[in-house]
Amino acid sequence: MNYNVNYTMLADFYELTMSNGYFKTGMKDQICYFDVFFRSVPDGGGFAIAAGLEQVISYIQNLRFDEEDIAYLQSKQLFEAEFLEFLRTFRFTGDIWAVPEGTPIFPREPILTVRAPAIQAQLVETYILLALNHQSLIATKSNRIVRAAQGRAVSEFGSRRAQGAAGALLGARASYIAGAAGTACAMADQLFHTPATGTMAHSWVQMFPDEYTAFKTYCTVYPNSAVLLVDTYNVLKSGVPNAIRVFHELGITRGGIRIDSGDLTYLSRRARTMLDAAGLPEIKIIASNSLDEYIIRDLLTQGAQIDSFGVGERLITSKSEPVFGGVYKLAAIEDEQGRIVPKIKISENPAKITIPHFKKVYRLFENATGKAMADYICLHDEQPDFTQPLELFDPEATWKRQTVTDFTARPLLVPIFQQGKLVYQVPTIEESRAHCAREVDCLWDEVKRFEFPHNYYVDLSQKLWDVRNHLLSSSSH
Amino acid sequence: MNYNVNYTMLADFYELTMSNGYFKTGMKDQICYFDVFFRSVPDGGGFAIAAGLEQVISYIQNLRFDEEDIAYLQSKQLFEAEFLEFLRTFRFTGDIWAVPEGTPIFPREPILTVRAPAIQAQLVETYILLALNHQSLIATKSNRIVRAAQGRAVSEFGSRRAQGAAGALLGARASYIAGAAGTACAMADQLFHTPATGTMAHSWVQMFPDEYTAFKTYCTVYPNSAVLLVDTYNVLKSGVPNAIRVFHELGITRGGIRIDSGDLTYLSRRARTMLDAAGLPEIKIIASNSLDEYIIRDLLTQGAQIDSFGVGERLITSKSEPVFGGVYKLAAIEDEQGRIVPKIKISENPAKITIPHFKKVYRLFENATGKAMADYICLHDEQPDFTQPLELFDPEATWKRQTVTDFTARPLLVPIFQQGKLVYQVPTIEESRAHCAREVDCLWDEVKRFEFPHNYYVDLSQKLWDVRNHLLSSSSH
Repeated sequence: MNYNVNYTMLADFYELTMSNGYFKTGMKDQICYFDVFFRSVPDGGGFAIAAGLEQVISYIQNLRFDEEDIAYLQSKQLFEAEFLEFLRTFRFTGDIWAVPEGTPIFPREPILTVRAPAIQAQLVETYILLALNHQSLIATKSNRIVRAAQGRAVSEFGSRRAQGAAGALLGARASYIAGAAGTACAMADQLFHTPATGTMAHSWVQMFPDEYTAFKTYCTVYPNSAVLLVDTYNVLKSGVPNAIRVFHELGITRGGIRIDSGDLTYLSRRARTMLDAAGLPEIKIIASNSLDEYIIRDLLTQGAQIDSFGVGERLITSKSEPVFGGVYKLAAIEDEQGRIVPKIKISENPAKITIPHFKKVYRLFENATGKAMADYICLHDEQPDFTQPLELFDPEATWKRQTVTDFTARPLLVPIFQQGKLVYQVPTIEESRAHCAREVDCLWDEVKRFEFPHNYYVDLSQKLWDVRNHLLSSSSH
Repeated sequence: MNYNVNYTMLADFYELTMSNGYFKTGMKDQICYFDVFFRSVPDGGGFAIAAGLEQVISYIQNLRFDEEDIAYLQSKQLFEAEFLEFLRTFRFTGDIWAVPEGTPIFPREPILTVRAPAIQAQLVETYILLALNHQSLIATKSNRIVRAAQGRAVSEFGSRRAQGAAGALLGARASYIAGAAGTACAMADQLFHTPATGTMAHSWVQMFPDEYTAFKTYCTVYPNSAVLLVDTYNVLKSGVPNAIRVFHELGITRGGIRIDSGDLTYLSRRARTMLDAAGLPEIKIIASNSLDEYIIRDLLTQGAQIDSFGVGERLITSKSEPVFGGVYKLAAIEDEQGRIVPKIKISENPAKITIPHFKKVYRLFENATGKAMADYICLHDEQPDFTQPLELFDPEATWKRQTVTDFTARPLLVPIFQQGKLVYQVPTIEESRAHCAREVDCLWDEVKRFEFPHNYYVDLSQKLWDVRNHLLSSSSH
C-alpha cells in the first residue's frame, strides 16, 4: 500500500509564477524567513494543539518535480526554459524549525519557521499550511472532546463524513495524538497505528429475520468482543432485552451495547439499570450520534451512564469551526552581507499585522506548580537570562506589566531541517500522544475552559517589540 | 505522478468484522440492496449537486486486498483463516446505479444503489459515502457561490485551508463541476484539468525595497497577465497608484489588480474610478478575503465594482456547513428464490425512517417550460405510463395531492456497474460541468433561493408508499 504521494505540485499556481519571477530577476538565492502562525483558536478555545509536522517532513523530503510536472508547466507558456531546467534538480536546501506535534500552541506565535532561498521558501507555502492547518484543527477539536469525556474513551468514527480520504486518515491520526482512544478506520490503523475498533451497523441487524437472531449470530462469531447495536427497532423494548437474552444464553459477561439514536441520557440510564438487574454490570454502554464536546459535557452532567463515546462528523470535520487559519508570512530577508532585514506586513486590522524578524519562542513554566505561565518571543540572537526576574508586558497594552520569577524556560520550536537535511528524530505517534497529554496537563484549568477561557500570555521581548514598533511607524509606502 | 491510491482498506473496521461474520455464517452470497441518500440540503438550500462518482468508480475498479492488508487483518486475531483466504481474490461483482455528477439531487431519494453479495455491499460503504459526501458538499456550496456571482468568474483559492490533500484536490474538482472558473491549485489542474490561475502573494511585494519596484518587476516578467496585489500597505494611497504608474510606464492596458482586505465594496468602487480616470478601463478588479455566497450577493447589491472573485476557506471546507450527511442503508435482500424482500430501518425520528425496496427515480420536466416539477420514486419493476395524467401526493401529508400532465420523465439513476463490469461512459469534467449548468437551469428560481427556498417535491408511487406503510405498521420486533 503506497500512500507516499509526492505533493510537490500541490502548490498554488502563484507560487510557481512568483518563483519564475524570482528566477528571472536574479533573486532565486535571496534568503528569506517565513513564519507559520495563526490568529485565533477555533471554537473560542484557550489553546490549539499542533499537528501535521510528520507530513510536512515527508513532503519536504519528497520535494521534486518529475518530467510530467515539467511538461505540464511548459504547456502553460508562462515559464522560462531556464527556470523549468532549474526545477529538474530542485531540492529543499534550507532550514526549518517547528513545534513538535501534540504541543499546545497560541495565536500569533511562530509554530514553524522556514529559512531558505526565495523559490524554495515560496513553493512550500501551500502544502505546509495545508498539513498543519488540517491536522492542528482536528487535534484541537479532538482534545476538547476528549477532555469533555473526563477519562472515558473517545473513538473517532467519522471517515464517511470526512472531507476526502486524507481528511479521514490524517484526521484519525491527529485525533489520536490529541487523546482519542482509536478510530473506526482500518486504513488509519494500518498506516498510523491508531487502534481500530468497531461494533456493528444497522444493516447487520436488518439482514436477519429478527433482532434476536442477529445478536445471537454476532455473539457466536465474536463471543469475546461483541458490541451490539440496540437501536434498530426500539432500544428499551427490543434492543436491550434481546441483548440481555443473548448474553445470558451464551454466558457472555463482558461486551457492550451501542446506542446510536434517541435521548442518550435517558436511554443509557434505563439500559444500565436493565443490564445491572440482569446481572451484567460488566457490559459497557457505548454512545454515538452527532456528539461533540458540548453534548458529551451535558450528558455527563445529567448522569448519563455511558462508558465510551463514538464521535463522527463533528470531530472529523471540526464541524463547529472547520477552518484552522494558519498563515505563512514573510518575516525577514538577508541582505548581501548576510544581515537579517526584518519585514512586516501592515494591515488596517491590527490583528493582521505580522511580527517581523527571525525569532525564537520560549515557554515559561512556574517552578512551584509546573504550570505554563506565558510564552515569550524574542529575537533569534537574544540570550535572555532566565535566572533573573523577567518583566513581561502586553504587546498591545504596554502598560500592563508583570514581573515573573522562579520559572523554567523551554524553547518551543526545535530544529527539523538544517541545510536541507533532516536533523529531527521524528517521534512515534505514541510519543506524540504522550507529549500532548503531558503538555496539556501543564496548562491551568482556566485556559482549558470551552467558553471564554483565560487569555494565555504571548509576549514579546523589549528588543523585538522595538523592532516591530520601529517598522510600524516608519512604514510609509 | 501516481495519485491512484488503493482505498480498499479505507473501510470502517466493523465492515470487516461483519463481513467475517457473514462469511462464517454462510451469508456471504446473500444478495443485498443498499441505497445512498441524504436527509437535508446543506445551508438550508433547495437542492444539492451530486459529485464524486468518478472517484467511486476508480475505487470499485481498484478494490482488492494485498498481502500487506491480509497480514494486518491477521494480526488482529479476529478473522477466520478461510475468510482471509477469501479476501485474497475478493473483487466487486455486483451492480451499481447512480446519478451522474453535476445533477441536482434532493433529500430522501436514492442517489446511488448497490446490488451485491453481502460482503461486497457492506465493505464499500465507507468509501462510497466519503467520496459522494465530500464532493457533493463542495459542489453544492460552490454552485451557491457561483450563482451569487451572477456570471462573474469564481476561482477556488482554498488549498491551504482544505482538510487534507484530497480535500484540496477533489474539492477543486467538485467546485469546477459546479461552475467555478478554475482553481489556484496547480496539482488539481494537472490531475483534473480544472484551469489553474494565480496572482501574487504579499511576500512578493514585501521582498522588494518598495511596492512600485515589486509591481514593475512583476509586470516586466508577465506583461500580458499581471494581476497586482494592491493591499500590502494601503490600497488607495499606495497600491492602486503604484499599479497605475507601472501599467502606464509599461503600456499595459489588460491585466488586473487584486484586493484581499478592507471593505471590498468601498475599495473596489474607488479603485474602479481611479483606474477609469487613468484610462485603464480594461484593468479588471479581483476580490478575495473570506468570501462566500452571502457576502458576494451583498457586495454586488451594494454596487461593488468587482470582475471576479477568489474564494478560499469558505468554499473548500463548506465552512458554514461542512458535512454532507449522506447515509448508506439496506433497502432489500433477495430470498433463496431470488425474490426481493424489502427492508426498512425504523426510527423514533420520522425523517430517519428509510424508504424500503429496490427502486428507481424519475425526474418530471414540464413540457411547456422545460422546468423540473418533481421527482417520482417507484418500485424497480413499475412501468408508469407517463403519457397519462399522474397523481402525485406528499408521502407524509397524503391528503396533499395534485395531478400533473404534459411532462417528460427522465430516469435519474443510470447503470454504472453490471456484474462488476463498468458499463458507464465516464464523462469528461467539462461534460459534467456543462451537465450541471444545464440541469440547474431546469430548476425554478424559487428552488434556488439561498434562504427558505420552495420545497421541491420528491414523491413515492402509490405501490411504493403501500410497501413502506405495510412494513412500518407490521414492524414489531
